[in-house]
Amino acid sequence: MLGVDPGLTRCGVGVVDVAPDRSAKLVHVGVVRSDPSWPIAERLAAIAAGLREVFDAHSPDVVAVERVFAQQNRTSVMGTAQASGIALLIAGERGIPAATHTPSEVKAAVTGYGAADKIQVQTMVARVLRLDALPKPADAADALALALCHAWRGGSSAGAAASAPLTPAQQAWADAERLARR
Amino acid sequence: MLGVDPGLTRCGVGVVDVAPDRSAKLVHVGVVRSDPSWPIAERLAAIAAGLREVFDAHSPDVVAVERVFAQQNRTSVMGTAQASGIALLIAGERGIPAATHTPSEVKAAVTGYGAADKIQVQTMVARVLRLDALPKPADAADALALALCHAWRGGSSAGAAASAPLTPAQQAWADAERLARR
Repeated sequence: MLGVDPGLTRCGVGVVDVAPDRSAKLVHVGVVRSDPSWPIAERLAAIAAGLREVFDAHSPDVVAVERVFAQQNRTSVMGTAQASGIALLIAGERGIPAATHTPSEVKAAVTGYGAADKIQVQTMVARVLRLDALPKPADAADALALALCHAWRGGSSAGAAASAPLTPAQQAWADAERLARR
Repeated sequence: MLGVDPGLTRCGVGVVDVAPDRSAKLVHVGVVRSDPSWPIAERLAAIAAGLREVFDAHSPDVVAVERVFAQQNRTSVMGTAQASGIALLIAGERGIPAATHTPSEVKAAVTGYGAADKIQVQTMVARVLRLDALPKPADAADALALALCHAWRGGSSAGAAASAPLTPAQQAWADAERLARR
């Protein structure tokens, strides 16, 4: 499972192996960069080349890309949309199924709470993947969270969400909250 | 000179040859399409494949792509941004210089009037390229206008705009207005 947190300056990529029991293992995490001083066409080509290396190295079965909204009216939003389009394009050209998820879907899937902050998401990603430290930089952590989100949402889509057992993330978070209350 | 009017459902492409005296000749005009019912990754792959065919067939020296703004808050704006990113990516991967122009830059360059309507732009494109009818569909006409805009702006960038002679479009438009007033 490959997650992509799209960006033109920094594009986070995270690859995880997710078992049928929803446990997950870190395979690869990194950031594909392009130089902001370059012309836009060369920046997009650099992002595409970096993403293709990740696809080549890890042959993902599925790709999850963060959904970009026009409402996020930052100056970078068009570059972010273009980078997301390139990640989806590479998946499409290789016949790999691709999906998009909103940031709040990712937060809800990983922490059980759609308005979780970045540190909460990173903490859960580190816990689920049994990492010694928070994954860095933030773009890379978001890419891992996206990959976990898609794996878990896909894996539970056949069941009734209300009666589903807690995801590993939700269980770990519940455990952490219980510990904090002691 | 290749102009691209980006879109996910219809992506206009226009190729023109522009001489040093700014006269222009139509080489190719068309529309690359993708099926709205397809998954986004496959749609982007279809657009990329269609654009690559145009690049292969016409080997443009320069590519001009319409600039997309987040403020154009239509539901399609993200798909338009992604399609524009793919046109720029293909240029970047082939080492072909690429530029973006806003719609009002295109209108101003082609008709001499930044708020010109679509019919005025299409009329000028047909006149400059000596076409028997208005270029259709609108996306294709816009792509031709983009290509002309970039050629003329680039060609006149070294000179002083205020003292530059009228472009063929401006001259033709001025002639048409003079005729209309008779």
